[in-house]
Amino acid sequence: MDIRNYVEQLGEQARVASMSLAMASTDQKNLALTKTAEALVVHKSALLEANERDIEEGAAAGLSPAMLDRLRLTDARLDAMIEGLHQVAALPDPIGAVSDMHIRPSGIQLGKMRVPLGVVAMIYESRPNVTIEAASLSLKSGNAVILRGGSEALHSNQALAACVTAGLEAANLPVHAVQVVDTKDRSVVDELVVLTRYIDVIIPRGGKGLIERISGIARVPVIKHLDGICHTYVDETADLIAALPIVVNAKTHRYGVCNAMETLLVSKAVADEFLPQVQDVLGKMQVELRGCEKTQQIISCVPATQDDWSTEYLAPILAIRVVADMEEAIAHINHYGSHHTDVILTQHHGRAMHFLRAVDSSSVMINASSRFADGFEYGLGAEIGISTDKLHARGPVGLEGLTSQKYIVFGDGQIRS
Amino acid sequence: MDIRNYVEQLGEQARVASMSLAMASTDQKNLALTKTAEALVVHKSALLEANERDIEEGAAAGLSPAMLDRLRLTDARLDAMIEGLHQVAALPDPIGAVSDMHIRPSGIQLGKMRVPLGVVAMIYESRPNVTIEAASLSLKSGNAVILRGGSEALHSNQALAACVTAGLEAANLPVHAVQVVDTKDRSVVDELVVLTRYIDVIIPRGGKGLIERISGIARVPVIKHLDGICHTYVDETADLIAALPIVVNAKTHRYGVCNAMETLLVSKAVADEFLPQVQDVLGKMQVELRGCEKTQQIISCVPATQDDWSTEYLAPILAIRVVADMEEAIAHINHYGSHHTDVILTQHHGRAMHFLRAVDSSSVMINASSRFADGFEYGLGAEIGISTDKLHARGPVGLEGLTSQKYIVFGDGQIRS
Repeated sequence: MDIRNYVEQLGEQARVASMSLAMASTDQKNLALTKTAEALVVHKSALLEANERDIEEGAAAGLSPAMLDRLRLTDARLDAMIEGLHQVAALPDPIGAVSDMHIRPSGIQLGKMRVPLGVVAMIYESRPNVTIEAASLSLKSGNAVILRGGSEALHSNQALAACVTAGLEAANLPVHAVQVVDTKDRSVVDELVVLTRYIDVIIPRGGKGLIERISGIARVPVIKHLDGICHTYVDETADLIAALPIVVNAKTHRYGVCNAMETLLVSKAVADEFLPQVQDVLGKMQVELRGCEKTQQIISCVPATQDDWSTEYLAPILAIRVVADMEEAIAHINHYGSHHTDVILTQHHGRAMHFLRAVDSSSVMINASSRFADGFEYGLGAEIGISTDKLHARGPVGLEGLTSQKYIVFGDGQIRS
Repeated sequence: MDIRNYVEQLGEQARVASMSLAMASTDQKNLALTKTAEALVVHKSALLEANERDIEEGAAAGLSPAMLDRLRLTDARLDAMIEGLHQVAALPDPIGAVSDMHIRPSGIQLGKMRVPLGVVAMIYESRPNVTIEAASLSLKSGNAVILRGGSEALHSNQALAACVTAGLEAANLPVHAVQVVDTKDRSVVDELVVLTRYIDVIIPRGGKGLIERISGIARVPVIKHLDGICHTYVDETADLIAALPIVVNAKTHRYGVCNAMETLLVSKAVADEFLPQVQDVLGKMQVELRGCEKTQQIISCVPATQDDWSTEYLAPILAIRVVADMEEAIAHINHYGSHHTDVILTQHHGRAMHFLRAVDSSSVMINASSRFADGFEYGLGAEIGISTDKLHARGPVGLEGLTSQKYIVFGDGQIRS
């Protein structure tokens, strides 16, 4: 079968399954999730064997040690997937919730009902745990999902998908609710992202290259974030004693994550006092500092170039710029940032409120570490991605981001005059 | 200047203006709206003159009488625009509203703030009143807007834009907040819809051809509806006495609107009783009835073809199909409909609730006319369009549809552990 027909068939099967899934009860969906978790427990050794095949083929194909590590399933990683399934089962079901019912002057009662989007296609790279995360969040939110993982993880993903299928069957839900693409042919992605007839949203997860390529060709709407160039601005009104741990946490808590700070902006009024403290702590932690000219006059550091302001390091590197005032900080953030998460440290209420309104990012924070921008920390229970777009979902995307609302009207014979 | 540079310049100017506009106070925005209304009053004769030039050129170019009518400004139409500006000024300002603030276990306070999308581009056809509607809704929601109206309305739109500019200046807001494209070159549209760097959303308004063409080439997200194939399903549990006026209203209240009923579905259990009543009333109103085979056995009508089920007539024509039961009605609606507005007439609570959940449309109604699916009837105060998409905005789109929410975090020194 050619790839276009294959993908169309996946899409049509997903669409049909999505109609049953949209009507499924919460109990049924939760049963599918817990039965999938049981299947993961029962088939642990088969899953590890399938993964071993991927690892061997990947090693033979010359994958880097870092890629092999992301690809590898371990007991601990399987346990985390099993725990994740139980956590998603425990989350409230968003579907069917009716809100804002009120009576209009015409006499009709108007409100909104939360409903699934329909069919989600998830395109991701090597980590097999995304298969279970995406399947569980889609299932709980009543969406059918098509999963296209990295081709190097094909055996692992198929083995995981078999467990999901067992869960769906146990709950009497259509098996096409969760489908894993079972070919390594890369043109599958090109076909998926234009299948507007059957697919409602594409969620790519992976490197910036993958996401830019998909956004560039997709006709189906995409929920995405490209990068996280997060700033912390230390205002002259900041409590500098509280500021230091926040700055250190935002940079060093984890380096390879999108909500890590990449650029520190410091008001010139406190730069002489604050920057040496930053250098002292981050220097000991082997963080490379790249400073603007004014920063270089205060501490010893690598000279920053223009490129540093728009680079997501995902590494122990920090760009530092001294700014004249808060307006310069806001302008820098809105110009060079990626609209992900930006922070002001200040004890001045009016300035905090101004920053909050003026910075055009999906999360804007006062006196806290940017590392809090996360689905779990925000109480979404789980996260399918972080959106730096403004339409539909913005910031960490949990179950609600996979839903829509329709208007509902209760009448008793009203006609329009 | 070539068109690409021209459109880029419009985009950049809009982006810069959008930053001021996002921070503008409610009073400032309302002042711009009321001063625009004043300018429309003062310059009424100049507006009518500019419109007369368009009409003359349009007549010379052979525009149809219907198109000339849509293009024409009259005293009454100008008064409606002036009234509309005052109405939008009176609407609550959605921007800056903070909601859902609560404390997370980490100690941070988390909530959401409503903010503008940024830059809206509106692409529409001949009716000049859209210029004022789109400008006023964009302005009130804190968005800059680029308006590309029909080339046949260029003089009218420029004269209207001059009034908006006067309003912006009087309120000390940037004049680039509202820009009217001042060339008839059609390639402007091709450039606008791919300008992702500066434009956040495209809203096309007009015929299905225009909207399909734009959706097909756009890289900027589009809020759209293609057509309104609205159904009314008369269940065997309907109150047939109440059903008749609803059916008549949905079909005949206005023919050329997207929320008019195009297909009537009738349960076979009540078809013998109900269809002759429909024929009686609609026949007197010169509505052409096109029926399925079973319908033809009950009343005299034109035989419906397969195409009738997926045609938006916008005319005194009604397709009628007798269905075996509610499930067949739901399947018909989800298959042939356009996910706009669909109605069940029933007195059975459980069946009503099932229909509500199962029909995948932006508005689903019980015992009311589909004509209620409208921004004014829904209390949005105004409407920039009706979305049949599921992402971001669904159904009638008012001010809120032109906004986004960002997460806001209030901390007092929290770091992530």
